[in-house]
Amino acid sequence: MERVELSVGLELSRIVYGLWRLGDDEDTSPARVQKKIEACLEQGITSFDIADIYGGYTTEAILGKALKDAPELRARMEIVTKCDIIAPIGKYSGRAVKYYDTSPAHISASLERSLRKLKTDRIDLFLLHRPDPLMDPVETGRALDEAVASGKVRAVGVSNFKPHDWELLQSAMENRLVTNQIEISLLTHQPMTNGELAFLQREGVAPMAWSPLGGGALLSSGHNRMNEALKHFAERDGVEAGVIAVAWLLAHPACILPVIGTNKLERIRAFADAFKVNMDRETWYALYTAALGHEVP
Amino acid sequence: MERVELSVGLELSRIVYGLWRLGDDEDTSPARVQKKIEACLEQGITSFDIADIYGGYTTEAILGKALKDAPELRARMEIVTKCDIIAPIGKYSGRAVKYYDTSPAHISASLERSLRKLKTDRIDLFLLHRPDPLMDPVETGRALDEAVASGKVRAVGVSNFKPHDWELLQSAMENRLVTNQIEISLLTHQPMTNGELAFLQREGVAPMAWSPLGGGALLSSGHNRMNEALKHFAERDGVEAGVIAVAWLLAHPACILPVIGTNKLERIRAFADAFKVNMDRETWYALYTAALGHEVP
Amino acid sequence: MERVELSVGLELSRIVYGLWRLGDDEDTSPARVQKKIEACLEQGITSFDIADIYGGYTTEAILGKALKDAPELRARMEIVTKCDIIAPIGKYSGRAVKYYDTSPAHISASLERSLRKLKTDRIDLFLLHRPDPLMDPVETGRALDEAVASGKVRAVGVSNFKPHDWELLQSAMENRLVTNQIEISLLTHQPMTNGELAFLQREGVAPMAWSPLGGGALLSSGHNRMNEALKHFAERDGVEAGVIAVAWLLAHPACILPVIGTNKLERIRAFADAFKVNMDRETWYALYTAALGHEVP
Repeated sequence: MERVELSVGLELSRIVYGLWRLGDDEDTSPARVQKKIEACLEQGITSFDIADIYGGYTTEAILGKALKDAPELRARMEIVTKCDIIAPIGKYSGRAVKYYDTSPAHISASLERSLRKLKTDRIDLFLLHRPDPLMDPVETGRALDEAVASGKVRAVGVSNFKPHDWELLQSAMENRLVTNQIEISLLTHQPMTNGELAFLQREGVAPMAWSPLGGGALLSSGHNRMNEALKHFAERDGVEAGVIAVAWLLAHPACILPVIGTNKLERIRAFADAFKVNMDRETWYALYTAALGHEVP
Repeated sequence: MERVELSVGLELSRIVYGLWRLGDDEDTSPARVQKKIEACLEQGITSFDIADIYGGYTTEAILGKALKDAPELRARMEIVTKCDIIAPIGKYSGRAVKYYDTSPAHISASLERSLRKLKTDRIDLFLLHRPDPLMDPVETGRALDEAVASGKVRAVGVSNFKPHDWELLQSAMENRLVTNQIEISLLTHQPMTNGELAFLQREGVAPMAWSPLGGGALLSSGHNRMNEALKHFAERDGVEAGVIAVAWLLAHPACILPVIGTNKLERIRAFADAFKVNMDRETWYALYTAALGHEVP
Repeated sequence: MERVELSVGLELSRIVYGLWRLGDDEDTSPARVQKKIEACLEQGITSFDIADIYGGYTTEAILGKALKDAPELRARMEIVTKCDIIAPIGKYSGRAVKYYDTSPAHISASLERSLRKLKTDRIDLFLLHRPDPLMDPVETGRALDEAVASGKVRAVGVSNFKPHDWELLQSAMENRLVTNQIEISLLTHQPMTNGELAFLQREGVAPMAWSPLGGGALLSSGHNRMNEALKHFAERDGVEAGVIAVAWLLAHPACILPVIGTNKLERIRAFADAFKVNMDRETWYALYTAALGHEVP
């Protein structure tokens, strides 16, 4: 499995395992979670993506319980977690509305909580989950710099930021933001032409892609042209259709790290096939054309 | 009243009084206008926003008449005026269409006319009113620099400019543009997420906000969710609903200067209450959510 | 005819002759093509725009045949050609879909083919035809730099690039990109306000405009307001309606080079009239207002 250096001392596996639905599995016991982690590690997938809010603020603790008695697993993993969304659920159920909090007090408290729940003393990569229109770049930037300086996180980044959000925050920071985790897939391909990926390429930053299968929609009915195109190339190369959609992202020069979430062990194994796909230019554009619904201009 | 330093030697009051409708008052006598100015000054509102075109090119003269015999008022005020719109009314009624003129000849003639009508020998802040697709950045930039060099204006800025308009003009100037007066309100909140405010924050430029109450629409029927949210917080904090909408702008870290226009003396006084509102993050987002019509993603 | 210096040693005529439809003429003999070139040269139009894909990859050869025995014509011309579109026609008819190829191998092969077909040993200006979402800026930039270093092209540029596409490619190159050929006309006037022209103005780059007459639509029925406005000013100034549309572009400070394609010799001559039009600010905005369908804000 290819590895990507996001900053000095921080490498992620090119494919990242997403823990968004970890709590949805029937079995969330430490043993079962450890099995999933092992299945990933066997494929060379060493990076795991989570967020404080996943599972209504409960998923980090599920992962933490599995890691508590398995320090040898933790040592082989990179954990990416996120903060800043306050949704009126769980411990925040009294809040009037969903909102974002990028204040230093919240960032610091959220980081401490994530460390505690994850039973670890360091987050490998800590992200702001959503751009906050109320963000004070100086205060937020300092809070992120301090998180790095404290040794509690190895690096910081963002998620769902537009280039202007990135530039504003970065302009007030000492450390480099090392990634932007955004939605990219054959269903949400606009970042490839609207300047979002071009901006990150120019900055030399590798993006992470959430929902690289369009939340599964790419593979469901209702996208017939897309389904057929994926199936066609899947048969040609002897892989699953979803693997073709991931290979489509891997072929882009922006060095996209797809975040793949599945609770099925066998599917985790399947995704390593993405590197075997023959994603030449003609194949790439055939899929892009199916995604656009018309040929390129 | 908080004050904002836009450039060395030029401070505006955080709330600016807008004279857009000065001529619509039944009484436009110098005595009445002086009363309004005094009501503002009592609140610490020392900055007054006008434009050559207001009232069909007649409003500057109404203000000038009031200032003519009241130099002690003028000395305590900052006057912001604007140029570049040629509308086929008043002295321009022969023109075929409405257009913008950022030529040096027009800028210079417009400045001279504003000085004459306002009965003053210096404009505190002189703005281009609208971006002109025909603007020659070198010529227009030089004209603005010369206006500063002549001592006839203390500083220059723009209005309704997009970041690219700003960058083009600024790249050809010696003086810094010190503000961009744009529409921002709970009805027109897009600048908070589309990069317009982020750009100004990065440049270290405080924006002025025109129509901070959405031209009154925020308070009228037809915006029920918004009306209710404003009323709710107005009752909570014991202020007028419109004051909540202004406090919402003041809470943003971009340091927005709302331009408030009202011909009613009592309402001028009410707006100083905006600084007393408890605009915490949850309140801010409750209003933003009402403005969006749905919760944040 | 005004001339524009795009880079040291490369000047184009302000009006460029477009050879898009060269192959559509009933007579494509060398003699007829030479007549067209001579008609252009008589007007001071020395720059000729073509692309590998025009006429289904056949038009370059038609021009080449006309130049083969007329080296004195070639010596007085600048040839602009383009590469990167692979359409499933002609030699590419076996391809599954239309796509773009900015790989060094394709750029280099396409350049060699263009030189061979055009019977020339140097392209004056070589453009990437479309932004390619799969472009690797480092590889593509190096390929363009090598094209310049080899002496086979005098300068390189792009077409249909957005500012972010430009910045990405330029950031990886030694040579300056010298133009961006984009669609601009009274029908497609958005580049004048969406930042595309502002970006090029800031970079000091003169754009070329394709379809300056909206592909003829400006002059056809269905655009009544536009037709009338063009006719009105055409009668005022004693020129053709299309000439007014071209003069509208020439008046913009971005220094736009319109690419005009017509197979009629008499129309080639007419366009030199564009410099005689009285395109003052009021006329410019009257046309812009007709294009918008409403007055400016």
